[in-house]
Order: sequence, then C-alpha cells, then structure tokens
Amino acid sequence: MSNPAAPAIPPFQPPRRALMGPGPSDVPERILAAMARPTIGHLDPAFTDMMEQVKTLLRYAFQTGNKLTFPVSGPGSVGMETCFVNLVEPGDQVIVCVNGVFGGRMVENVRRCGGVPIVVESAWGRAVDVDQVATAFAATPDAKILAFVHAETSTGAQSDAAALAEVARRHGALTIMDCVTSLAGTPVLVDAWGIDAAYSGSQKCLSCTPGLSPVTFSEAAIDKVRARGTPVQSWFMDLNLVLGYWSGEGKRTYHHTAPINPLYGLHEALVMLAEEGIENAWARHRAMHEALKDGLEKLGLEFIVPAAERLPQLNSVALPADIDDAAARARLLAEFNLEIGAGLGALAGGIWRIGLMGASARPENVDVCLKALAGVMGSRE
Amino acid sequence: MSNPAAPAIPPFQPPRRALMGPGPSDVPERILAAMARPTIGHLDPAFTDMMEQVKTLLRYAFQTGNKLTFPVSGPGSVGMETCFVNLVEPGDQVIVCVNGVFGGRMVENVRRCGGVPIVVESAWGRAVDVDQVATAFAATPDAKILAFVHAETSTGAQSDAAALAEVARRHGALTIMDCVTSLAGTPVLVDAWGIDAAYSGSQKCLSCTPGLSPVTFSEAAIDKVRARGTPVQSWFMDLNLVLGYWSGEGKRTYHHTAPINPLYGLHEALVMLAEEGIENAWARHRAMHEALKDGLEKLGLEFIVPAAERLPQLNSVALPADIDDAAARARLLAEFNLEIGAGLGALAGGIWRIGLMGASARPENVDVCLKALAGVMGSRE
Repeated sequence: MSNPAAPAIPPFQPPRRALMGPGPSDVPERILAAMARPTIGHLDPAFTDMMEQVKTLLRYAFQTGNKLTFPVSGPGSVGMETCFVNLVEPGDQVIVCVNGVFGGRMVENVRRCGGVPIVVESAWGRAVDVDQVATAFAATPDAKILAFVHAETSTGAQSDAAALAEVARRHGALTIMDCVTSLAGTPVLVDAWGIDAAYSGSQKCLSCTPGLSPVTFSEAAIDKVRARGTPVQSWFMDLNLVLGYWSGEGKRTYHHTAPINPLYGLHEALVMLAEEGIENAWARHRAMHEALKDGLEKLGLEFIVPAAERLPQLNSVALPADIDDAAARARLLAEFNLEIGAGLGALAGGIWRIGLMGASARPENVDVCLKALAGVMGSRE
Repeated sequence: MSNPAAPAIPPFQPPRRALMGPGPSDVPERILAAMARPTIGHLDPAFTDMMEQVKTLLRYAFQTGNKLTFPVSGPGSVGMETCFVNLVEPGDQVIVCVNGVFGGRMVENVRRCGGVPIVVESAWGRAVDVDQVATAFAATPDAKILAFVHAETSTGAQSDAAALAEVARRHGALTIMDCVTSLAGTPVLVDAWGIDAAYSGSQKCLSCTPGLSPVTFSEAAIDKVRARGTPVQSWFMDLNLVLGYWSGEGKRTYHHTAPINPLYGLHEALVMLAEEGIENAWARHRAMHEALKDGLEKLGLEFIVPAAERLPQLNSVALPADIDDAAARARLLAEFNLEIGAGLGALAGGIWRIGLMGASARPENVDVCLKALAGVMGSRE
C-alpha cells in the first residue's frame, strides 16, 4: 500500500449559524476569545489555580458544596460513563428510568458495568412517573442505585428530580442524575435534592464548546467508590486515579494531560454565569421560552410535552404532516443559517427540537427562528 | 448545607510560556485562532465535510491508507483505552513491553479488560529489547496481541517499531502501538511497519491543545472487533458505535457531540503539517535536537538514553546532584517563563525532560532554554 502524499487542504472557515438545536448552543465571543489564549502546561501553578476556580464555579452551577466537583476531560457521554463505572459493581441492581434516548443509554451503561438494570419506562415526551419508581423499589428492595435523566434531551421533558431522589433515599439507594441539558437553564439543586452523582455537558446552557463534562459526587458516592470490591473497569475514568490530579489535596499528580484551552473556555462560561447570577439565567431561559412558545403556536406548531413537564430550553414540537423534515431543516440551514434539531430514536422524523440554551436564549434568536420557520412553513404548498 | 453564592472570579489570563516539557507544546497563533472560530453543529454538513478532511490529513500524519483513522474525543489516555477495550477480550493473552510509565499503563489497561498481560520489561531509558519479545512469543504461542510504546514519553527512548511488528506478525498477533510523542516528530509509518492499532495525542508534535487522540486501525483490527464474543465494556469507546458517526459511510448517526472547536484546532494543525511536509517536520525536529544537544552537553548535562535510541523531540538528561529539582524548575518558570518536564515514576526527581515538539522545535526555543538553564545552573553554588 503506498503512503498518502501531503493533501492540499485549506484552513477551515466555518459559516456563522444560529444554533437552536439540542446543543451545541451559540458560543459567545468572550468564550471563543478565552479559548484562543496562550496554552500553558497542565501542571503550571497558574493553570492549577484556574482549575481550583473552575471547581468553585461549578459548585455554584450545581448548587452544591460537594468537594468532588470538576469537569471530566470528555463529552457528556464520558461524564455519564464515569458515574456508572465508578458506582456500579458487577451484580448491583440499578433502577433506571427511561423516558427517552438518554435513559436508554444509561441502561446500556449499567449492563456494560456488569450491573443488573431494572427498567422503569415512561412515555417519551413525559416526565418519569415517580409512583412507578416507588413500585420498582418495593419490588427490588436491594436496588443500590436510582438513575434518571432530569432533562431528557431527546424529548424536552423535565422530571421531578427532588421527588425521585426522595424515593431513592427512602430505600437507601444512591442517585445518579443526568443534567446535561438542564444545568444553568432550569434549577439544578444537587444538595437541596440530595443527588449523589450528577453529570452535565459544556455545550448546552453553559454555552461553551462541546467536549467537557462537569460532574459532582456526594460523600456517600465517594464512600461507595472507595468500598468497591472490584477495580473500576476503566483506567481513564477511575475516580481513585483522577482525584490525584483534580482533588487539590496534597501533591498534585499527573493522570492525563488536561484539555487546557477548552478549560479556559469553560472557566469563562462559568465566570459569565456567576456575573449574570444563576437565578437570572433560569429566568432568562423561561422568558425566552414564553416568547418562542407564543410564536410557535401562532405558526400552528404543537408541543409534544404537556406544559407542566416542559423544559423551557428545549422545545419539542410535532412536525406538521405536510413538511419534509430533512428538506425543511436543510432550507433553514442554507437560507437562514439556522440550526434546529431533528427527532432522535423513536421520535426521528416526527418532531423538531428547538433549543434556547445559554447564549441562544435571547430575543434575537427567538426572532430569527420564528421568521425562518414562517419562511419554510409558509411556502409549503 | 447552604448552597454557594455566586463566586466573584475574574476572567483567566494565562501567562505566556515557552513550553518545552513532554507536552503540551507551544500552540501557534494560527491554531489558537482556528479554535476561536464560530461554533457550528456536529451534524452540520460544513462540519462533517471538515471531519472527512481531518481523516484524510490524519492518514497522511500516520502514513496509512487505513479507512478507520479519526480523532477520539478525549486525551491520549482515552485513545489508549479505546485500542485496548476494543481489541482485548477477557482471557486474551497480550504481550506488553514495559520500558517506562506508559507501558505500565498499557498493562493496567489489559488487566481492566479482563486480558492476561505477559510483561516484557526493558530498562527505563532504553528501547524495548526485540529479542526478549521474540522469547515471550515463543513461550506464549497463543498471545493475541503485542502492545508497545514507540516513543516512551517518560524517558525519551525510541523503540524499533518495525522490528517489533515483524515479530508479532510472525506469531500471528496484532499490534497496538503508542505513538503519542512520536507522531509528526519522527517517522511513524503505520502501513510500512504493519501496525494494527495506533493512538497519539494532539498536544505533542502536532502542537495543538490537549484533548484529542488521533487513532488508526487496520482491517485486521476491525475484523477482531467485529468477531468479538463479548460486548466492548465501554459504551463511549465502542468502535461499533463510534463508527456510525465517524465512518462517513451511509447516514451519519449521532453518537456523542464532537468537540467542535478543538477539532477546528486539530484541522489547522494538520493543514500546517501538510504544508510543511512531514519529512521536513521530521528533519526540523532532528536539527533542533542536534542544536539543543550541543548546548546541553556544554552545560555538562548528560543524556540518560544512548544516542541510537534517543527521541529527538524529547531530551532526558540526568539532574546534577547539586540541583534541587522543584526549586530549579520553579525558577525556570518564574524568571524565564520556561516549562520543562520533571521525571515520572521511577525517574521522578532524577531527570529533566526537555521537549522539542511541534512549534516548540525552533531555534528561538533552543536559545531560550539553553540561556535559562545556564542562568539557573550557573548560580547554583
């Protein structure tokens, strides 16, 4: 086989889009500029000081005092897997709530850790049914963990995390919560709700580039990791090892080379969140949702999630029967530079997911989106 | 527990350093600027076109025609783990060459996959002993895989990858090669050597920010993954799933949200490599090594690796007995804005590792380094 010669490929110049899908969201110039600052070493004291700030800022975002709060060096799926490989031991029964794609991914994670998933299914587009979870615990008294998705990115439904965690606590189980799409967009109250492990993503309501996954663990979760009888199956995600670098206690030991510039971006995003105030960020997402909802309803689009269970930052609407999904989204992109999301899994082809996350939750984006949709839908005969 | 209030933390302004440790290396302005371009979606046609270009450019860097060549969305340790979790099945015997920290990490990976590591130890600071590997194969005829580190980042020693792969081929075993520190710095000839799986990192001789791990797999490696009797233990790293997004064949399916802006940076780094020509990049690293070596020897510093086994891009020298390691490196950083690397593992406190990787392999950096070292070493009485 002959080896390839040097390809003649020019630098990449991306178009400028309005990002209103399920993430990534629009990344503000301040964050992009932060990512372009000079790279320094992952053990440089200036960098490790910044790491400590990121941990402090993440505790604010998660509303927690958990010492073990840091960004995993990978996308949200790595944050998810980090929670499962550390907390689930072979044979552990784990009650997993499934009301969309990401609950299904949790089931797959439990299986690959050698755990036994007990699946509680709720309808896609609805919140998780808390009573069913209580019934599952009654039938499985030895279940060690309850896992659920707070904000289902595949449907736009929000579940009652406080009530779910309360059921788990009554049965002596730990909780793993996916808050990839909720963090900084709607209240995520890790301590008030009593969540033991939570993971999120950088590219949703934090408005950063994708690739980092903020996580937080309670003392009870750390105790379970420390008491394991079997090693964590992943070297990279083993919290016992990661902690040598991120804990900030004693000598900081090398584990892997942290993604320096993306962490500059996350730091800036979190500084911006603290400047705005997290309650104000929640209110902004809510207000933009109200404006978008009015416009979508005027266009005749119907939400698939009941009002009380809707995520303001992710608006799923049924696709009108006479609209060609792929063709319409291609026009939105080509003619309006607007990205919205398609359906996933069972909802593929049936819905659109319109995100109002982070910097995308602003009046200009609502206007752009409603005008573009009117343009595409008005010319559909 | 009361929830934290908004922390008052200002934006982070990193100092400007000369990065001459074992990575990250200096990141050129062109690459930093690329990372600050507008974020677009991971399924945007403009983005997926760029992904195809990254694959083409990576094939050039690895000197391979392998179709399955792409960047894993995580640091080099995730690239390493991706190779092991896919290729090693429970019970598989894997011959692992250990001549430094990263060979040891490979052993740990094999164990966590349920494989049986057969360890071939060579002295730290030396190349892997090819004859010992042949002996290990003779004693373990059922070994399925040979794993070795081409360029040991913990010592600066380079092994004879072609000879090692030849031994493996004679015994019908696949090869996994760590080329984190060698790719684009010294010849890495995946096809000519007959390597089945290789992984690297973005932050060494490619001069990009850390966080991405280029990997490449031969058809024989893919066949082994497809023929597995057990599922891959990691959901995130399962090549069967990752391929739906990166393969570029058929409909591109969502797996995880790719790290958009870091991939802009990697694309730019690879475009720069193609512009320079990979043979010229190898020659530049060699020439800068010669210049640095002369200067280091004039300062009385001695290399720990014999000349024939030395990596030009990573120069490990013994620490003079009268130098305080941590204090001297702190002065290099504070007074000269120069980062060099400390020893790792068994060599901690005993050596310095001076990197000449990617954009750091230039005359200005050699000068800065030699002057700074002279400054710190001259004032040691």
